[in-house]
Amino acid sequence: MAVRLAILGAGRIGQVHARAIAANDTAELVAVHDPVAAAADAIQAAYGCEFRTVEACAEADDIDAVLICTPTDLHAEQIELLARAGKAIFCEKPVDLSVKRVRACLDVVEAEGATLMIGFNRRFDKDFKALKSVIAEGRIGNVEMVTITSRDPGPPPIDYIRRSGGIFRDMTIHDFDMARWLLDEEIESVFAQGSVLVDPAIGEAGDFDSANVLLKTGSGRQCVISNSRRAAYGYDQRIEVLGSDGMASADNVHEARVETATSDGYVRPPLQNFFMERYEAAYADEISAFVQVVESATAPPVSGHDGLMALVLAEAANVSVAESRTVAIDEVME
Amino acid sequence: MAVRLAILGAGRIGQVHARAIAANDTAELVAVHDPVAAAADAIQAAYGCEFRTVEACAEADDIDAVLICTPTDLHAEQIELLARAGKAIFCEKPVDLSVKRVRACLDVVEAEGATLMIGFNRRFDKDFKALKSVIAEGRIGNVEMVTITSRDPGPPPIDYIRRSGGIFRDMTIHDFDMARWLLDEEIESVFAQGSVLVDPAIGEAGDFDSANVLLKTGSGRQCVISNSRRAAYGYDQRIEVLGSDGMASADNVHEARVETATSDGYVRPPLQNFFMERYEAAYADEISAFVQVVESATAPPVSGHDGLMALVLAEAANVSVAESRTVAIDEVME
Amino acid sequence: MAVRLAILGAGRIGQVHARAIAANDTAELVAVHDPVAAAADAIQAAYGCEFRTVEACAEADDIDAVLICTPTDLHAEQIELLARAGKAIFCEKPVDLSVKRVRACLDVVEAEGATLMIGFNRRFDKDFKALKSVIAEGRIGNVEMVTITSRDPGPPPIDYIRRSGGIFRDMTIHDFDMARWLLDEEIESVFAQGSVLVDPAIGEAGDFDSANVLLKTGSGRQCVISNSRRAAYGYDQRIEVLGSDGMASADNVHEARVETATSDGYVRPPLQNFFMERYEAAYADEISAFVQVVESATAPPVSGHDGLMALVLAEAANVSVAESRTVAIDEVME
Amino acid sequence: MAVRLAILGAGRIGQVHARAIAANDTAELVAVHDPVAAAADAIQAAYGCEFRTVEACAEADDIDAVLICTPTDLHAEQIELLARAGKAIFCEKPVDLSVKRVRACLDVVEAEGATLMIGFNRRFDKDFKALKSVIAEGRIGNVEMVTITSRDPGPPPIDYIRRSGGIFRDMTIHDFDMARWLLDEEIESVFAQGSVLVDPAIGEAGDFDSANVLLKTGSGRQCVISNSRRAAYGYDQRIEVLGSDGMASADNVHEARVETATSDGYVRPPLQNFFMERYEAAYADEISAFVQVVESATAPPVSGHDGLMALVLAEAANVSVAESRTVAIDEVME
Repeated sequence: MAVRLAILGAGRIGQVHARAIAANDTAELVAVHDPVAAAADAIQAAYGCEFRTVEACAEADDIDAVLICTPTDLHAEQIELLARAGKAIFCEKPVDLSVKRVRACLDVVEAEGATLMIGFNRRFDKDFKALKSVIAEGRIGNVEMVTITSRDPGPPPIDYIRRSGGIFRDMTIHDFDMARWLLDEEIESVFAQGSVLVDPAIGEAGDFDSANVLLKTGSGRQCVISNSRRAAYGYDQRIEVLGSDGMASADNVHEARVETATSDGYVRPPLQNFFMERYEAAYADEISAFVQVVESATAPPVSGHDGLMALVLAEAANVSVAESRTVAIDEVME
Repeated sequence: MAVRLAILGAGRIGQVHARAIAANDTAELVAVHDPVAAAADAIQAAYGCEFRTVEACAEADDIDAVLICTPTDLHAEQIELLARAGKAIFCEKPVDLSVKRVRACLDVVEAEGATLMIGFNRRFDKDFKALKSVIAEGRIGNVEMVTITSRDPGPPPIDYIRRSGGIFRDMTIHDFDMARWLLDEEIESVFAQGSVLVDPAIGEAGDFDSANVLLKTGSGRQCVISNSRRAAYGYDQRIEVLGSDGMASADNVHEARVETATSDGYVRPPLQNFFMERYEAAYADEISAFVQVVESATAPPVSGHDGLMALVLAEAANVSVAESRTVAIDEVME
Repeated sequence: MAVRLAILGAGRIGQVHARAIAANDTAELVAVHDPVAAAADAIQAAYGCEFRTVEACAEADDIDAVLICTPTDLHAEQIELLARAGKAIFCEKPVDLSVKRVRACLDVVEAEGATLMIGFNRRFDKDFKALKSVIAEGRIGNVEMVTITSRDPGPPPIDYIRRSGGIFRDMTIHDFDMARWLLDEEIESVFAQGSVLVDPAIGEAGDFDSANVLLKTGSGRQCVISNSRRAAYGYDQRIEVLGSDGMASADNVHEARVETATSDGYVRPPLQNFFMERYEAAYADEISAFVQVVESATAPPVSGHDGLMALVLAEAANVSVAESRTVAIDEVME
Repeated sequence: MAVRLAILGAGRIGQVHARAIAANDTAELVAVHDPVAAAADAIQAAYGCEFRTVEACAEADDIDAVLICTPTDLHAEQIELLARAGKAIFCEKPVDLSVKRVRACLDVVEAEGATLMIGFNRRFDKDFKALKSVIAEGRIGNVEMVTITSRDPGPPPIDYIRRSGGIFRDMTIHDFDMARWLLDEEIESVFAQGSVLVDPAIGEAGDFDSANVLLKTGSGRQCVISNSRRAAYGYDQRIEVLGSDGMASADNVHEARVETATSDGYVRPPLQNFFMERYEAAYADEISAFVQVVESATAPPVSGHDGLMALVLAEAANVSVAESRTVAIDEVME
């Protein structure tokens, strides 16, 4: 029997998930909600589901699981409501911008014994999964250094920047999760360095647009994360892992696999422009994974703890950049 | 209103097209037929369509177009039946193994004013389309030489070889179509050279497993096609075009975009194994293109003439390899 | 003790070899000759050697070996003179444009027991040697198909074309040698196809500027050679070998290993422009190999027979292109 | 007239420079010195120069310039001696392990008006020069972030580690110079993080074998340097530069440009193993540049100040790693 789902929040990412559900043989979209009712029209029309309130979704007998695609400040509250209602929950990152609030929310999830999966879509990217497999197979020996290059094609509107919680909680948070996933060991300390090089307005909004972060685990493994809000050549998403026996890397995705050679040189197309193209298949696989978790009542591949720890690293980066020093994770876990 | 479709032939390629129809918002699969009724079960179950006879499909008021995915020897007859019944037709290549039979069939299609599109899937591959665009934009000047490398990962069963019509009509036929498409000028002469290097049983069956073909247009443009029934590293599908101002190429598709570097060197995964993976998206885009042709009553992007000419080139290759000489297209067009 | 050398012909290639000798610890340049005495000045000045006549070089006690870098029509005669004088001989390709003349010349060499090495420089290219090693190590199994792409950056002056003996004897001859070297089995038949696409003047001079050649060995192995007198992106020199267990390839050399990514795409520099850059190190290694042959009195790595067979293949290509048919080697060996 | 040179120190790098001088038409090696006289034999034998004491070299009328290839602790003293003797000086990095000692030495050089060039060979690498040109031509806009990956194939002997001054002064120093050269703006602050992951003995010797360093200029440009004493796949030397309009990168050098594709995947050879191969041509170009500086009495492309600043960055890295905080350059310039 198909897993019956509702979606809260009918914005861009909600639509991506609705499409993934439609293409999934074992999933069925029953309901959608959006504070602006009209916003849900497209999903209703395309997939023939009902419009229901959040409460109705929580109480419904014909809904097994709910995807939370609402603005961040609603996440924690909705998770708690749905956990108490016995629904399986998929929530877009982050759970909240406050470490304390996340921990409180996860306490409720745990107390209710609810299933909660966090939306770190990159873990479901085919190439990053292949990278993880190369490591798991021991082909490069013990992992020593992870290098993550993660750059957006261009900066978001300043308004978005203002509400984002800052580059570390908004953008680097994905990279923090990749670092934890690939290092397979908890991070102990963080150092972060930020600059405003792309747009002074970003600096005026209290944020950085260019940043480098260094992480270190208890056993001394290191990770470098290199972020920019602007990469003229497209959405730059690369990871490289150095191990005792070698190096493994996952490369970028270009618009097409063509090359044109003229007297000016050999030219390949730019990268796919942004996350909707780059991670289209990963989003679908993420939803498949969640549906399977609900179906088989197993543990989610990305847990609430994973969501918490990525946020903790972001928080530590904020302290580090303010104080120009290494920050231990323990300092921000209190 | 959606375009209503039937599929004749519920084998592997029929199933691929059924899946593409299901994912297409403007198409609807109404019926399926297969001489072995049970073979159609999977499609019926997955997509909720009816089982009907070929004749019923031809006569049905609720069917706009039919996809012919049956064995080659049924193609011409079914095309004629459906053309006379006023259905739009999509037919897998080749229309027939006999040039004469194909011409007779196309005469019927023309007389009935029917829409016929031939299934040369590679024209819908994203990377080959990008290659075509590079040429069309004039980025490499006038096209002078096309080089097509096309190798299967491994040979098909000998039984398949025996019924295939030979390597030129079975395998090279796709490359002939790509050559015509990219040269954008009719071929005037063909030279072909074959060897049996992969499996002596293929030679005993009267076929080759390794072949190189040279084509030439009226203006002297050339094309090299290099085929093998075995490429240990996967399904090798590359095209390179030399022009007066440069060269453009479309590269292969690997299993993943990862690379592992050890003391043994830098290793990338093998190529995607075969056409079902390599051209999965191309098959879907091909069906989308056909649905749009039916919807908008426009000319199909791959015509019956295209199907005929690819077969004519194959026939010329057969004569050439037998007589060790250049064969003019006119010789086999009679 | 150093091997003492003379150079006949002080043109471009003579100068390349003079420089290689100067850099070689076990070689010493004793004399140079050029019909235009002034032409030898540069070599004399740079390396402090004497100017001597051809006859004086042949008779000199202080010269062990002679490099023939004169125009082709002098090669055979000079080889014979030097062979009779007991000198070891290095001769640029081809020995002569006539198969018959080459055979007569090689008869003299054999009768005198002279050492003769032919200048097929590509055999000494580091990357092609690595390709040969990959094959020799059995890493791709039995060789089945060799694909040689060989394109000049631009056509030579029409005057050069007129004296060149035609594209197959002037340009393809290098590729014929690479084919024989990599297939490691004599070629049995040749098919060639030519066009004039680059410059009509080349056609008026009785030559082609674009050609494809197919070779076949007794056991059915095949080779494709693709030539053009124009490649806007630089000197295109690639080889690819398909074997029963895989494929090996040697790639081009770009001007630098840099890549620039902008909104227009990822750009690498064009290829090194021509043979003087591309094969600079190969020329030096070729001379080292010759010096070692003289020093150790061993058989040269490129023999007179190799020179003959490459010419025979060119001759067969000429017959093939004229008669549009496969030509057996035996037909041109008479 | 040729520039007449002497070499102090006949070890590995002294021999590399001797070979470069021999191949340079405008340079002549007059003398060599090594505390162990026998060590100079190879150079004397190969290039026919005299053995002289350091003092004799300084006083000689037939010597224009001296290359200092001795152990680091002799550099400063020899520079001062030669500066006072009016010789042009080329000195291998670093001038000294102490910032204070370097400054004192540079004061003498300045007072004497002597020419001093420091041996940062990477600035003469063809690919890094091409990278620098791409930036200089404005093709990627304003430079924002430089990423330097620099990993040795394997750790040196522990004895070497002990005398090396630590990874930042021994290994990263080259990367500091590349960072300054490419950023084209002085560094203001340094953060460094080290681990012992390769060999515990390196930790016992008080050093790190794995390190990441972050630099920042006054205008907020950043640089990441990633070092390891072990890269199983060869000598890893890559640089990538992000600008406002794009990214430019210089890639590694593999042993050969061949690729072998089998059912196990596509394999390229490992990287050239170490600096002697990787920078062979760069060393020769470095000496050519120095010879030209002496000949034309112009300013050296790598100055004593460049040598000082790279050391200052190393010193700042040492403080940073010890105190887990950002260190301003001014703190270590005292």
